[in-house]
Amino acid sequence: MSASGSLLVDNIGELVTNSPDGRGPLGLRRDAALLVEDGRVAWVGSARDTPAADRRVDAGGAAVLPGFVDSHAHLVFAGDRAAEFAARMAGQPYTGGGIRTTVGATRAASDGELRATVRRLHAEALRQGTTTIEVKSGYGLTVADEARSLRIAAEVTDETTFLGAHVVPAEYADRPDDYVSLVCGPMLAAAAPHARWIDVFCERGAFDADHTRAILTCGRAVGLGVRVHANQLGPGPGVRLGVELEAASVDHCTHLDDADVDALAGGQTVATLLPGVEFSTRSPYPDARRLLDAGVTVALATDCNPGSSYTSSMPFCVALAVREMRMTPAEAVWAATAGGARALRRDDVGVLRPGARADLMILDAPSHLHLAYRPGVPLIRKVLHNGVPR
Amino acid sequence: MSASGSLLVDNIGELVTNSPDGRGPLGLRRDAALLVEDGRVAWVGSARDTPAADRRVDAGGAAVLPGFVDSHAHLVFAGDRAAEFAARMAGQPYTGGGIRTTVGATRAASDGELRATVRRLHAEALRQGTTTIEVKSGYGLTVADEARSLRIAAEVTDETTFLGAHVVPAEYADRPDDYVSLVCGPMLAAAAPHARWIDVFCERGAFDADHTRAILTCGRAVGLGVRVHANQLGPGPGVRLGVELEAASVDHCTHLDDADVDALAGGQTVATLLPGVEFSTRSPYPDARRLLDAGVTVALATDCNPGSSYTSSMPFCVALAVREMRMTPAEAVWAATAGGARALRRDDVGVLRPGARADLMILDAPSHLHLAYRPGVPLIRKVLHNGVPR
Ligand SMILES: [Zn+2]
Ligand SMILES: [Zn+2]
Repeated sequence: MSASGSLLVDNIGELVTNSPDGRGPLGLRRDAALLVEDGRVAWVGSARDTPAADRRVDAGGAAVLPGFVDSHAHLVFAGDRAAEFAARMAGQPYTGGGIRTTVGATRAASDGELRATVRRLHAEALRQGTTTIEVKSGYGLTVADEARSLRIAAEVTDETTFLGAHVVPAEYADRPDDYVSLVCGPMLAAAAPHARWIDVFCERGAFDADHTRAILTCGRAVGLGVRVHANQLGPGPGVRLGVELEAASVDHCTHLDDADVDALAGGQTVATLLPGVEFSTRSPYPDARRLLDAGVTVALATDCNPGSSYTSSMPFCVALAVREMRMTPAEAVWAATAGGARALRRDDVGVLRPGARADLMILDAPSHLHLAYRPGVPLIRKVLHNGVPR
Repeated sequence: MSASGSLLVDNIGELVTNSPDGRGPLGLRRDAALLVEDGRVAWVGSARDTPAADRRVDAGGAAVLPGFVDSHAHLVFAGDRAAEFAARMAGQPYTGGGIRTTVGATRAASDGELRATVRRLHAEALRQGTTTIEVKSGYGLTVADEARSLRIAAEVTDETTFLGAHVVPAEYADRPDDYVSLVCGPMLAAAAPHARWIDVFCERGAFDADHTRAILTCGRAVGLGVRVHANQLGPGPGVRLGVELEAASVDHCTHLDDADVDALAGGQTVATLLPGVEFSTRSPYPDARRLLDAGVTVALATDCNPGSSYTSSMPFCVALAVREMRMTPAEAVWAATAGGARALRRDDVGVLRPGARADLMILDAPSHLHLAYRPGVPLIRKVLHNGVPR
């Protein structure tokens, strides 16, 4: 046992385990308790036969859930684009062109400034129940700026993603092939030691299918896992390419045709939906029901970034998923926890079973339903991260 | 000076005053400071020439706003309707019929249970920046239960509203005229000592125009101010009746025709929009732009209640107003502060000018824009209520 000893969380009115031991898709247990040892879940059971423990957290009859797994976030940037947001809400469409504004500010920022932003947003997400978060580079777009973005991201999370192919930077605007060569060559070499994943924004105006394939393939060759930003602003080849390249996840999935849905249903790739983007760009939402009904594994994530979705709130994404994408509350909660874990190919988070990481949250509410039933209300009373109360 | 002494809030990056002394509709000031004495704003000015004070709160360059004025909330109830919410999200329409479920639970609850719920939700709202909140009765619907609901509401707010005419209770279902007589007679007599306002749910399935007029008129005769729930589920006479009876506010305004808008534009009645309801009932949103463009004063409120909108979050309502009702961020913030104050005929809240109540919030953000730009994120860093940090 660790120096900190064992910790019992008891008086849990509703425990979401996401494990087959409980009832329904969320593996619900009533009147449950959970023992934490060495940062891991050591035991899950009935409140009637709780083991002894060094310390105790009384959940007060509330709901306890696995911490959220936010599998898509861009936290390494400088500046904000509040004015662009206000202009968009007044009618100006979102084209993604504003990414270059953030690239300029990010390049100009000191390491300390970037670190402060990453830590502030990471802490903000943790307060809202996010205990695992993926963080992408993609606002540096030089060898040095991508490498330092990932180095800083790695200070707060293991789930770092090299997104040198976020957009073609202005200085390469008339020679995108050269930029792809840079990404696959020296930029990848500098980024890979700090990254677990490689990602490409496959979209008209960003990277086409050939570029996307080239970049993902060279990333995979050096051992990075594959993920893709695909089919956000319009139809495109990104989703099918992601499935073909065995991406862990294709993200956005706003514009899908039947072949895209079939490919997802036939593969192992998760469809990660990012409804904060559609909220903040006033765009139509992805068709979650079509994906779920086809048997596709769906995850929810924030896409936290200063341009198209500056929310760090997984509860907000759950509420949007229910209201706007007709996911049931249970489907949305699963997608924001276990679904995110699948999108990161993790089996130790997003679930509360013996051996899993003791990442959990106690709600100010008796049921997971309240995350959708009480939209906007900060309902995360207490968070345990690696077994440590935060 | 009070025993607590004076308090200086300085290093304010952006101060929303809602006063003509500042710039634009929000009366913005940059690099501002504000002095609090005796629970009131004593001085507002430039950070360059701040007066001496006993204590100091450093806003750290963040935005400071008047506390939210939530002019429409139903906090006195028992039970929750999470299962009804989940069923509705799966396709069952909202008819208002579930109100009777809450009436049953409320009547069965002890004073202590009701008090605990009111205090919990009041504290939750305060943490989210709401420093003035209107609280309605309406889940008792007997003389004794309406009176005790208002007595308990009055423990947390001066803005109490008698809503005996929320719905005709089951025991009067076949004799609604008798229920109206009860409301206007002994129920009003028992409620009035604890209430500032009277309200009626004027809607098909609740109270018609004649009943609404009778109830509001008898309330007004004993000195209560008038407000109306109107035109939520369909077109109806409520809005025009409210304007005719000089209601402080008509609330919902989801289904308006030209005559309704003309009446509002020609009167002194505020149109209070409750977008949390449309979010949580998956209904079309009110047309805020039409009202604003016609010159109507618009307020935003939560309608916090366990059936149709169980949010206490004014920031969430601001974000919805911008995304879904095409209000500008400035219009939405004004409507959630100064607009709410107008809807309660208050000039001492919703504004930060000398003499106003020192009700304010410091954001975790540099601008009011972030309330819409960062949806779902708890951005209220610190709240002062009557000058007291909470
Ligand atoms: Zn993204
Ligand atoms: Zn109401």
